[in-house]
Amino acid sequence: MQNNRLTLHTDKYQINMIYAHWKLNRHNNIRVFDAYYRKNPFGNGYAVFAGLERIIDYINGLTFTEEDISYLKEQPEDYDEGFLQELKEFRFTGNIDAVPEGTLIFPNEPVIRVKARIFEAQLIETAVLNFFNYQTLIATKASRIRQVAPEDQLMEFGTRRAQEADAAIWGTRAAFIGGFDGTSNMEAGRLFGIPSVGTHAHSWVMDFETELDAFMAYAEVHPDNTVLLVDTYDTLKSGVPNAIKVGKWLEEKGYRLKGIRLDSGDLSYLSKNARKMLDEAGLDYVKIIASNDLDENVIFNLKAQGARIDSWGVGTQLITAADNPALGGVYKLVAKQEDGDFTPVIKLSGNPEKVTTPGYKTVYRIISKNNGKAEGDYIAFNDEKVKDQERIKLFDPVHTYLHKYVTDFNAVELLMPVFRVGEQVYSLPTLEEIKGYHQKQLSLFWDEYLRKLNPERYPVDLSESVWNQKMELMSKFKQKNNG
Amino acid sequence: MQNNRLTLHTDKYQINMIYAHWKLNRHNNIRVFDAYYRKNPFGNGYAVFAGLERIIDYINGLTFTEEDISYLKEQPEDYDEGFLQELKEFRFTGNIDAVPEGTLIFPNEPVIRVKARIFEAQLIETAVLNFFNYQTLIATKASRIRQVAPEDQLMEFGTRRAQEADAAIWGTRAAFIGGFDGTSNMEAGRLFGIPSVGTHAHSWVMDFETELDAFMAYAEVHPDNTVLLVDTYDTLKSGVPNAIKVGKWLEEKGYRLKGIRLDSGDLSYLSKNARKMLDEAGLDYVKIIASNDLDENVIFNLKAQGARIDSWGVGTQLITAADNPALGGVYKLVAKQEDGDFTPVIKLSGNPEKVTTPGYKTVYRIISKNNGKAEGDYIAFNDEKVKDQERIKLFDPVHTYLHKYVTDFNAVELLMPVFRVGEQVYSLPTLEEIKGYHQKQLSLFWDEYLRKLNPERYPVDLSESVWNQKMELMSKFKQKNNG
Repeated sequence: MQNNRLTLHTDKYQINMIYAHWKLNRHNNIRVFDAYYRKNPFGNGYAVFAGLERIIDYINGLTFTEEDISYLKEQPEDYDEGFLQELKEFRFTGNIDAVPEGTLIFPNEPVIRVKARIFEAQLIETAVLNFFNYQTLIATKASRIRQVAPEDQLMEFGTRRAQEADAAIWGTRAAFIGGFDGTSNMEAGRLFGIPSVGTHAHSWVMDFETELDAFMAYAEVHPDNTVLLVDTYDTLKSGVPNAIKVGKWLEEKGYRLKGIRLDSGDLSYLSKNARKMLDEAGLDYVKIIASNDLDENVIFNLKAQGARIDSWGVGTQLITAADNPALGGVYKLVAKQEDGDFTPVIKLSGNPEKVTTPGYKTVYRIISKNNGKAEGDYIAFNDEKVKDQERIKLFDPVHTYLHKYVTDFNAVELLMPVFRVGEQVYSLPTLEEIKGYHQKQLSLFWDEYLRKLNPERYPVDLSESVWNQKMELMSKFKQKNNG
Repeated sequence: MQNNRLTLHTDKYQINMIYAHWKLNRHNNIRVFDAYYRKNPFGNGYAVFAGLERIIDYINGLTFTEEDISYLKEQPEDYDEGFLQELKEFRFTGNIDAVPEGTLIFPNEPVIRVKARIFEAQLIETAVLNFFNYQTLIATKASRIRQVAPEDQLMEFGTRRAQEADAAIWGTRAAFIGGFDGTSNMEAGRLFGIPSVGTHAHSWVMDFETELDAFMAYAEVHPDNTVLLVDTYDTLKSGVPNAIKVGKWLEEKGYRLKGIRLDSGDLSYLSKNARKMLDEAGLDYVKIIASNDLDENVIFNLKAQGARIDSWGVGTQLITAADNPALGGVYKLVAKQEDGDFTPVIKLSGNPEKVTTPGYKTVYRIISKNNGKAEGDYIAFNDEKVKDQERIKLFDPVHTYLHKYVTDFNAVELLMPVFRVGEQVYSLPTLEEIKGYHQKQLSLFWDEYLRKLNPERYPVDLSESVWNQKMELMSKFKQKNNG
């Protein structure tokens, strides 16, 4: 959108590293970076990949403006003129592969792979992670919420509580991918074609002498789109009875009251009573919409209590992913191209989960031909022959004695070419297509992996070659340090 | 910045309400709205007001583009042509008052007050809250972190984990107001003049044959700005010894190694040992920088354990306000202008904290002339004479028997005129001035109100007239519902 304003949306260390590479004439070396995340958010069993379209936009618009260059000139680093010239001419010339948006993804598997001059691969790290992290987080939260209310209408209502404007807009897009139906945010509606909805607030009611006056006035203007907010004074004593009067009046005019909205109080009790009152008045078609700090757990519990709610407006908890507000995706150097070959590199850590998996790799989803279900994801070197194998050994990369053999499978490669030599080669699906693809993805997995609480851990395994390579590099470094 | 793209950054119900007001010819009625928040985040005793400059920018750029109008035309609401024409000519013509950025604010006191045609006042609600909520939240988090490390350098490092690009940029601005010294984000540096910093990542080290090669290469290019990340392989066995070698080499060249950075492991143990190793090598001037999921509690504990850390890079926990990622600010109709007078309006709720305080009000900070400390904040009607009173009664609006009399005070009005009849009348202070003002604000308050854990509740009280008015309106509505 305004992607040429995003070039300096990066960490300064990226600039200082690419400057140093340039000074040392290393900047054209080809490197491979993997982006992945380490831990599922919300105690979920999976994440929903999102943010790719934003990343593609960013890459396509990646140029340094005069203002950017002027800012760099002022820096105490005193960058060489030749470097600034290099930046002026900068455009992305590398390869990017990524999984399609809406794909279910799992910890520690590469979901974006960048193979480019280190000059470029390093520069884009921060923004790529920023976009991947946020949209994936929100799509995952939305997918969880969709699970507990498979048949209901789900509306994103979080703009005022979002972490600034971009979050409201891109978060809404991600929520739609994860299964939401609409949004209150007009700009997200405009940009992405997501249905935008909304009727009135408490201030509408307070602006009139009586609640009934306010309801009637609203219905007069919007007779075919009236949802009345019934909790300004007293939901069951005032709000619902007044809404019923308006419903009757609308019927006389040949319209139908669309709904009432509950925004406070005991949503279970109020919805059941409101439903009864509406039904007794012959307004059984009037929907009940609820809002007020909802999330998947509140909705799950309300439904278990028999709350009569048809549509849910979810705000803060969704748009900020309040119980887990950062995904923690990382972007790690895994291989260096040297004389045509790819040399794997590793980062060690006192913390075993933080040791990287070296090598120029790809990732397959192993799908049983017998039942169409995913058996596990399988990380192999890019040039390993996986599809032709008759039998594949899936073993846990931590508890290696845990293993199974799979035969009669399809190995579906998850990473798709997105950029080749700087050119976008990936055709963007529509948002509706992405949303549909996400639904189809869910059907690939056993329910045990998908459930909201205590899901089974889906296997993400390394090929024996990748595993052996990793062990070798680890022991090499251990020897070096002890020697 | 791109503020004309923000006009549709609003909830659809705002549009549907202003449309209905317009249809009913009520849209020019003057209304007063108060923005405030209800509960301190993070268990803190206060919040730090921020976001005003962004709001001013937004208001100044508030016009509907052709694209916006086209989008509205497509909506099922089928808005009248006359309404769309009204939007095409839209500009803000009202009054806005707000507290200056950097001010310490407290729950339930108006910090932004909008007096405008309801057409305008309603439209701007969503964006005003979005900007106020996020920047205030982050400035508050930053202020808490500053409290536990008053003398240290604090750097904002959160861009990759921020909730999209705007959050990274505006969150950095807010962090600076709350007491941070610099950022890794280049765009925030460019836009706001915040010092931007950064040296190298693990990928730099991994890209060389050995860690020492990597360190030497970096130091060669950036001899006067070298901070070496020492945890890629083994902090104390490899990283620090190699950094010391580079430090010695830099000394020979007439430079000084600036610092080392620890990004994993036990930061207390590692920093103490690294300090010892550096000191023994004569490099006592080399600073130790720490990062890795820091927040005010981790920093507080590390300092209590005697960690030898000079500078803190704070990422995720700050930029997402992870333990409380939304402020929850609200914007409520409080008065209607009718025949020149302001009629107060109230919103009731089953939840007593959610009952609004009616009336066209302002807020004073009551400062003792004896000790210069704030005694409480005092909400009065806009036309009450507060400054001339000899004695003021501060009483708790919930537990009204709790009260004190204050004499010999200054009543400092917190709300400042920002817009008058649509014109900006407020001169924006520089960011440095705002930061300085925030520090001065802190000195107005007793430590008991400011402490990180279990702070005393600072009194925010109503004048007797405001309190009486509120009680009257509440009982009026109660009678109506029971009658």
